[in-house]
Parts: sequence; C-alpha cells; structure tokens
Amino acid sequence: MSPFTTQRRLAVTSLGEAKLIGEIRRWLSTASPRPPGGIGDDCAVLAGSMRDQLITVDPVIYGEHFDDSVPARGVGAKLFNRNLSDIASMGGRPRAAVIALALNEQVRLDWLREFYRSLATIARQHRVPIIGGDIAHHASGLIATMTIIGEAPEDRPLTRQGAAAGDWIFVTGTLGGSRLGWHYKFSPRLAEGQWLARHPHVRSMMDVSDGLAKDVHALTPNACRAALDGKALPISRSARKLATTSGVSPLHHALTDGEDYELLFTLSGKADPAAFIAEWREIFRRRLTCIGRFVKRRARSPYTDELDLASVHGFEHLR
Amino acid sequence: MSPFTTQRRLAVTSLGEAKLIGEIRRWLSTASPRPPGGIGDDCAVLAGSMRDQLITVDPVIYGEHFDDSVPARGVGAKLFNRNLSDIASMGGRPRAAVIALALNEQVRLDWLREFYRSLATIARQHRVPIIGGDIAHHASGLIATMTIIGEAPEDRPLTRQGAAAGDWIFVTGTLGGSRLGWHYKFSPRLAEGQWLARHPHVRSMMDVSDGLAKDVHALTPNACRAALDGKALPISRSARKLATTSGVSPLHHALTDGEDYELLFTLSGKADPAAFIAEWREIFRRRLTCIGRFVKRRARSPYTDELDLASVHGFEHLR
Repeated sequence: MSPFTTQRRLAVTSLGEAKLIGEIRRWLSTASPRPPGGIGDDCAVLAGSMRDQLITVDPVIYGEHFDDSVPARGVGAKLFNRNLSDIASMGGRPRAAVIALALNEQVRLDWLREFYRSLATIARQHRVPIIGGDIAHHASGLIATMTIIGEAPEDRPLTRQGAAAGDWIFVTGTLGGSRLGWHYKFSPRLAEGQWLARHPHVRSMMDVSDGLAKDVHALTPNACRAALDGKALPISRSARKLATTSGVSPLHHALTDGEDYELLFTLSGKADPAAFIAEWREIFRRRLTCIGRFVKRRARSPYTDELDLASVHGFEHLR
Repeated sequence: MSPFTTQRRLAVTSLGEAKLIGEIRRWLSTASPRPPGGIGDDCAVLAGSMRDQLITVDPVIYGEHFDDSVPARGVGAKLFNRNLSDIASMGGRPRAAVIALALNEQVRLDWLREFYRSLATIARQHRVPIIGGDIAHHASGLIATMTIIGEAPEDRPLTRQGAAAGDWIFVTGTLGGSRLGWHYKFSPRLAEGQWLARHPHVRSMMDVSDGLAKDVHALTPNACRAALDGKALPISRSARKLATTSGVSPLHHALTDGEDYELLFTLSGKADPAAFIAEWREIFRRRLTCIGRFVKRRARSPYTDELDLASVHGFEHLR
C-alpha cells in the first residue's frame, strides 16, 4: 500500500498537528510514558545512569529504505530494528527512543497508524519506551528518523577498533538476499551482542549493514587484510533464490547485498574458534560462523579459496 | 545560495560516502571527538551521569525551515540553536549532539562545508560536541535532523505542567517578525533557562516556537484562560517593520509569527512580579516582561485591554 493518498478524508491533513499528536499517543499507548517529560514537552526526560550511554540515529526514507511494496508495519519494524541493531553491535542495552517524523499532508492516516502500532509492539517487546519526538512538514516525501539511547555493557562498549593481526573473524546468521523481505523482518541481535561484549576474547564488533565485503574493512587493523575463506561464508536461502534470476552468484549476494543486520566480530587470535563456537552453542541456537582471519597485508593466504575482496563492492551511498 | 548544483565536480557525488564522512570530520575538527565511540562507530558514546537526561530532536528541512535565501551557516545555526532552545526551555545543560543528514547527490560541497563549520562553531561555543550521526540518500531534498542530549537541573526539569490560576505569565526578549532573519540568528536562552529552573517561584516553562498565541495554551492550567495584557506585549522591531507592508498589525505578528525562541514561563501568583524582574535585572540585561496572568475561564479580566486569543492563530503544521 502506498503511504500517500489524494483523498483528503483519509490523509493526515484531515486532522492537523495537535490532533495527529493525540492520535500518535493513542497508537503508541503504553509504549509511550505520560507527561510531564514525555511526548508533548520540549524535551523527553530519561533517568540518569552511571554507565556509558550509547546514542544511535538512523532514518527510514520513502523511496530509499522502503516503497509501496513494504507494509507500514514493516517500515516501523525496520526503523526500530536497524537502530536497535546499532545498540546490539556495541553490546548495549537499549533504554529509550525518540522519533522525528517529516511528512506531507497526503500521508494516509491508516498507514501512519500501522507504522506507529508496529513501533509500539517493538517498544514493548524490548522495553524501550518512545519518550518523545517531533513532527514537521516535508512537501516531498516521508522520512522517519529515530534516535535510541542505550547503555553500554558494564566493562566496555565494544567498538569497531581493537582487532589485531591473527584475530579470527566471525559472523552470526546468514548473509545476502535481504531485499526479499529480511530487511524489514530481521531481529536485532541484542542478547547476542550483550553476551559477546562480556566475552573476554571478543575484540571488536559491528553489524553488517552495507554488505560484508565493505563492512569488514571497518574492523581490519592497519597493515592487515581480511582473509575470508570462500568455502566458509554462510549464504542465506534468499541469496541463493535471488541468484537464480539476478545473474550474479549467491556468494556475491552474500558479500554485497547489505542490510543483513547480523553481527560481525573478531575473536583474539590466541583463542580457539571451535571452543568459542561450542560456548556459543550452549546459549544460542543461531548460526555462528568463523569466516576468516586478519593477516598481514602481503602474507600468504591461510585458505586455499580466499575471497578476493578487492573485486567486490558493498553498497555505496551517494553514488 | 542554493544548496544544490548540477555541476558534478562541485557536488557531494564527486566524493562518495566514505570520503564525505572524512570531510565532515575535518570540517567539524575539534567539535567532534576521535573514535572509538564517536563518528564512524555504530553508536556514539557519552559518559554516564546520575542527573535526569533531557533528549530533544528537531530537523531543518529544505523548503520548510530554510530556502536559497538563508546562508548555509544560518541553516546550521538554526538547526543547532532550535534544539538548544528546547534544552534551555527545561532549564537544562546541553551535553552532546548527533546529526542525521538526508541528502541527494546534487548538494553542493561548499554549502555543506559552511553548514558543518557553523555547527562546529556553536558546538565549541556551548561545549556540546557532535559525537555521531548518519548520512543517507534522499532523492528529493535536504534534511538535517539533530538530537541533543542534555542534563536536567539538579532539582527538577522544568516542564510545561505546573502553573495554577493566578500565576503570572512572563516572556523573555521581544516577539514577532522572526522571518526577517531572527529565525537563523537567535541565541538559545540557556543561561536564562538554567537560572529560571533554579528559581523557587518559577512553575513551568517552554520556548516560543509556533507563536505566543498558540504556545501559551500549552502552559494554561485546566479550567483557566491566559489573560494577556494587550498593552504589555514586547513587540520586536522586525514585527513593526513587517507590519508596514504585510497588512497585519505588529501585535498580530508578535502573537502568531513563531520562531521567536524566547522563553515563556510562569511565576507563582504569590510572588511579586516587579521584585522578580528586579532579581532578573541583577543578572541578565535581556528584556523580561510580565505579559499576563492565568485566570479562571469565565473570570473578569484583570486588564482593560485583554487580548482576544480565540481570534488569532499561531503556526499550525500540516494544514
């Protein structure tokens, strides 16, 4: 369904701003706290905490991150979950969210209702209240931008820095083909991220959003390369399905499609990858794969079938 | 200057995303901390604090909040200052900011440079580092959305709730005519807001963004009306100037133009407004005016020249 309509009585313009905010509160219901200090005040209020706070912001933009083929509930889920995935990728616990909505008067009320209801569902599921936001007019489109405040794990936020030559490279789940629906149906890997951040041998982490081939560079130490084992990559069923019609291989989909929202992390080279996977299996059923290792830039390959990352490119914005 | 160009070498597309982020870091310079945990990681990291945290989010949208007539530096200043004004209006201290930028490939690099440099200037001025953000493609426009995290005053965040019948209504500065330049040149009333939040007789507060006639309703207690003294309203020079050609009165401009970003607050009815203004004058040179009083809805007017707020309307979004 298109988020837009030319029928005035079905559109946002039939309400005006004040009534729209009232409706949003109703749609969010218990997912949004009462004032003072929630929706309707100049700022939202969040209790203090001595832990490091994590802040992430990501939008969903009509025509970029979704179109008429994605249901409104999927758009809401994508917005919330891609932000939660950023919190997960530093091992954090999400605490609260605010949303800035930019829209024109032709946006359908029933579309917005389903969008906010899906936000409310996820807010309750993860106990992340929506404590504030903003609504602004935007003649040419529909954009929702969410900011999430989270809390770092007790010891440290797990950043993208920290890997060294010899460290193992791991990824959760499977990769590729997200456009077949995964991009608005995935679950953020919050429990996994929190467990990994507490594990003493895990060195650095991020989530896979632009595609493994591009994202792995962000974890790669200076003067090193990411040697990925071509036989090890966990390729999704969607990647294989897409490859039957796309003209590119399942492997290429897995490396470049992006929006996988799986966790990509590194394990100390001194640790035993098999023992680590065994530890993981005691807690999580989700697939975990050791996909390679960081080696010195000109070092011999540890794999007979190392992937040539220079020949593939992940999603590049603004090109 | 238009933010857009069809000349490829002058536009964002000449760089691509990774290099653009590098440029943004350069433009922000010391206004943005180094990684880990700043721009370039999945989340920004902010140290913990036991005080209540304030969160506000507001965008600037091309065609809505600015156009080709506003210099890029003015757009940056407006974005930062309107968010700081929300922190000010709860008496808070701003701590850090993140920015989500949505733009197409035709945005001029020199426009963006000036925009980010003005953000950097304000970040340094108020010691509010820009600790993270996001860049996304948006075919039809240019939107920058800022989220600021601040800290509530020690005792309480000053919300919009709390006024009672008999309380005095005050406003800082002057009102009206902001479109003559004020909307991108104003200073957020941070020091004033912090002082007011500590004052035991101040009951509630907000900033004037949609126009006094509309905004004052948000502070008005149940079963009361805001009785505003028509003779007392501090009308700006810009409002008088606009009125010479607009066909409406300076008073109407002052009541409805919006984007004044002055503080509107209430003082206990038991306090003496003249004594309060004398206290203010010991610290601030900025104009402060007692503009009216909350009275029971059907009560006699305390003023011979009470404004008829029902007949004027402030800025209504989405209409």
